[in-house]
Amino acid sequence: MPTIVVEVMPKAELLDPQGKAVAGALERIGTTAVRDVRVGKRFELTVDGPVDAAVLEDVRRIAETVLANTVIEDVVAITAEESIVPGETH
Amino acid sequence: MPTIVVEVMPKAELLDPQGKAVAGALERIGTTAVRDVRVGKRFELTVDGPVDAAVLEDVRRIAETVLANTVIEDVVAITAEESIVPGETH
Repeated sequence: MPTIVVEVMPKAELLDPQGKAVAGALERIGTTAVRDVRVGKRFELTVDGPVDAAVLEDVRRIAETVLANTVIEDVVAITAEESIVPGETH
Repeated sequence: MPTIVVEVMPKAELLDPQGKAVAGALERIGTTAVRDVRVGKRFELTVDGPVDAAVLEDVRRIAETVLANTVIEDVVAITAEESIVPGETH
């Protein structure tokens, strides 16, 4: 069954305390390459049937209203992926 | 500055209570297309300098040891993205 991936990140202009905590932890363990960290969410939605325009529109609406809090977060990507189920015929 | 995106999801064989809660909420508001939801994390790491093999190896190690709890989570993707800063020359 196809999977639609929705990616949500905190808005760029807002502080991200969770990301700051991770960045601090990386510094304490001696990592020097990473300057900044931001932490968001990745949703995998498994949908019935083919991914057509109507389904994508539905998912876009869900992403903006349910999955992301658009006051503080942005939906940065909605990607359709055909998940490979072993033995499934296409 | 380049950004490296690390995506982490709960292992497929484990229950994902957060995803189940979202799936239940979608059903209650009348969404029929979505059968299952899983919720993971998306980390954006801003790195200094070019993304070479050493930096990616460093990030892979960080992802497996700090960003993901590999007992219950998998690192599903590590992707390098050149972030577009307005006015920056390449």
